[in-house]
Amino acid sequence: MGRFDVVIVGGSSSGLAAALTARAHYPNKEILVVRKEERALVPCGIPYIFGTLGSFSKNLIADQVLSKQNIQLKVSEVKSLDRAEKKILTSDGETVGYDKLILATGSVPYSPPVQGSEKKNIFLIRKEIPYLQGLMSTIDRIQDLVIVGGGFIGIEFASECRKKRGLNVSLVEVLPHCLMGSGLDEEFCVEVERALSEIGVRIFTGRGVESFEGKTGVEKVKLTDGKELRTDAVLIAVGLKPEVRLAEKAGLELGRTGGIKVDRYMRTSDPNIFACGDCVEKSSFFTGKPVKLMLASVGALEARIAGANLFEIKRENPGEIGVFSTTVNEIVFASAGLSERAARESGYRAVVGEAIASSKHPRTMPNVAETKMKLIFDSSTGTILGGQFRGGMDTGELINVVSACILNRMTANDIARFQMGTHPALTSSPVTYPLVNAAEDAIKKMG
Amino acid sequence: MGRFDVVIVGGSSSGLAAALTARAHYPNKEILVVRKEERALVPCGIPYIFGTLGSFSKNLIADQVLSKQNIQLKVSEVKSLDRAEKKILTSDGETVGYDKLILATGSVPYSPPVQGSEKKNIFLIRKEIPYLQGLMSTIDRIQDLVIVGGGFIGIEFASECRKKRGLNVSLVEVLPHCLMGSGLDEEFCVEVERALSEIGVRIFTGRGVESFEGKTGVEKVKLTDGKELRTDAVLIAVGLKPEVRLAEKAGLELGRTGGIKVDRYMRTSDPNIFACGDCVEKSSFFTGKPVKLMLASVGALEARIAGANLFEIKRENPGEIGVFSTTVNEIVFASAGLSERAARESGYRAVVGEAIASSKHPRTMPNVAETKMKLIFDSSTGTILGGQFRGGMDTGELINVVSACILNRMTANDIARFQMGTHPALTSSPVTYPLVNAAEDAIKKMG
Repeated sequence: MGRFDVVIVGGSSSGLAAALTARAHYPNKEILVVRKEERALVPCGIPYIFGTLGSFSKNLIADQVLSKQNIQLKVSEVKSLDRAEKKILTSDGETVGYDKLILATGSVPYSPPVQGSEKKNIFLIRKEIPYLQGLMSTIDRIQDLVIVGGGFIGIEFASECRKKRGLNVSLVEVLPHCLMGSGLDEEFCVEVERALSEIGVRIFTGRGVESFEGKTGVEKVKLTDGKELRTDAVLIAVGLKPEVRLAEKAGLELGRTGGIKVDRYMRTSDPNIFACGDCVEKSSFFTGKPVKLMLASVGALEARIAGANLFEIKRENPGEIGVFSTTVNEIVFASAGLSERAARESGYRAVVGEAIASSKHPRTMPNVAETKMKLIFDSSTGTILGGQFRGGMDTGELINVVSACILNRMTANDIARFQMGTHPALTSSPVTYPLVNAAEDAIKKMG
Repeated sequence: MGRFDVVIVGGSSSGLAAALTARAHYPNKEILVVRKEERALVPCGIPYIFGTLGSFSKNLIADQVLSKQNIQLKVSEVKSLDRAEKKILTSDGETVGYDKLILATGSVPYSPPVQGSEKKNIFLIRKEIPYLQGLMSTIDRIQDLVIVGGGFIGIEFASECRKKRGLNVSLVEVLPHCLMGSGLDEEFCVEVERALSEIGVRIFTGRGVESFEGKTGVEKVKLTDGKELRTDAVLIAVGLKPEVRLAEKAGLELGRTGGIKVDRYMRTSDPNIFACGDCVEKSSFFTGKPVKLMLASVGALEARIAGANLFEIKRENPGEIGVFSTTVNEIVFASAGLSERAARESGYRAVVGEAIASSKHPRTMPNVAETKMKLIFDSSTGTILGGQFRGGMDTGELINVVSACILNRMTANDIARFQMGTHPALTSSPVTYPLVNAAEDAIKKMG
């Protein structure tokens, strides 16, 4: 294939964002994306294939986005990387030279060492269509499903398989609560679990999996407390590992958490190689320390830094805030930055402000929901460290208001003077606006 | 009634927010709100009384909010203010002393000097229930309605009366487009007008009203271009004037635009008297110059500054950004800060960035809408000056993300690195997130 100015390995959201950013900043460069999947799935949409969307074809990344920007696409797996010669070798035997390389190789699901894991009908959440088609054809013909892992992916699969397909879903989470490992504080985790219970998902928290039992296929999941769950299939969603085999083989430095080590400009230990997305070790916006945060939105941020910096340093990574949202039974749960628990564990003297408001005003407006907001502040400086809320289906962007406050290190007093737009049919009232009132509540507590 | 530590004149959203903030900051003070309305309406909800809500009782400010915070309420009109004696006289003949006074007297609708304005069935949009009941009983028995003024209130009334009541609604706006006077740029104004047309509102822009014709009641509205609109009633919504009679009589200084003059701590020319809301002259966050912005959300901001500063200066007003949102035919239109037009008029070398994205991802998710985002930057510093968008019904909070960017004087490069949370069912994708991509587009144009 010859030589390209920019070669990007990986075509999921980080690779895509990196390619588009590189194009925006370097209009005359030759850019190639090498992706191993014939058709690439929108990663966050995967749980929704199994319910709301109903098909793989409805969850594809549109390749025209690349061609429209004059970015070439090659479907092949990269087998090796020769840094001295600045070239990659793909599984179809081709060699491609690069001037700058971006690794966006993503992650692979973590497979816990549980006895019986080799049995049939036990699935991980991979991103490849052929694998997921096996999962789909299984789910199509079963009644009982056990999901191991109550993180975002686990609860989204649980919710879709229960609500849209009517399966009997049991969810197993080793931590005391679902989403606890994803940064929600306990009071919100409890609400997530209530929402899941209300749609009929059975929840087993504080217990791990002892073994998978059955003849050839899984028939039973044995929990560490002795309880046994009858099942037709198992979905494992207990976490992700950075996919770093290519980087490692090429001798690039890895970080303490196993991801590719990058500087604040997203450069790896080789100045001509950048990396972004799940394959990269992240550092905390707050403490600067390594932090595990595998989110498409985080990858897209890193991609926009890597893509802009390829030939000239233009952007710095301030560290990852970590902003999540999800929905169960028409309720939104979201979090940005540190939870109260994480703030205390990080050594902050955390003060919490809370507020409740109806999502529209007056509260007699149609489709009203209650918004419950919690903000976490560092009491020694008054600076916001994090925020979480539960709200109606139209509050998805509210967590991004919280994120903006964190990103700009606003204080409680700043947030109490936030200038928001409000409208009866769209938001809480100017008097009850929960972001502002939670800040005011924290100020009261800080004295 | 004796003497109170804090007396607040006015019980609409600014008065309410001022009282609640005063209580939060000064838990031991005696606080009284004096309000002239027996029952106070949620101001922004008024257009919705005539459609979606359907009754006055569904749009009331709940007085328990005050009593729960140990704030007293007196229903009476304040007739005069004696600054030397620090007391007010109410219409029921009572005298109330104060230590600190907050004026939140609001605004009254502007009544343009048009020939025939005295005819029956011509209404302004006042906030008092008895007056609006007259409007309601008229609207209940008519077919044809002319609304004069295509600002937010005008288009919301037009939308409600057309869509929920099936009236034949004609909307007259003297500017070239609806909402142009409220800070939207032309391309969005055109979309607002299209949405209004789609529900059957007839729009007459670029023309004023020459006269109202009819025997005793209005029967015809004659426009300045000679066109005549047959009608049963007229609603006038061409703007608001600050209600400053009490302040003026008491000798408080007024600003150039007619509102009460305040410093950045919301103090009037009398250090014991604060003011907030529509009765106050506002200054621009950008230029510091006086700016007309009568919004409940702006009033609430000022109220939170005034209430906190009563006995000790704690908060400063950085100037008003101006953040609006509204909805027509299930489409949201919103604006924060300066429009492109206003930015150029203020002397900035404005550069615009634009982006379009589907509101959920993949775009095959249910209830998807298109979001069209425009950001305006000062090209000499790269700082954001404003933003506008059109989107689906769940994008109401997106304008507050824009507002946060403005408030923190973020640059296009900062916004291109925004850390947002995204979710398939709730937001645009991390790759297409329109705020970020509009910033990237502006960067490209700034070169």
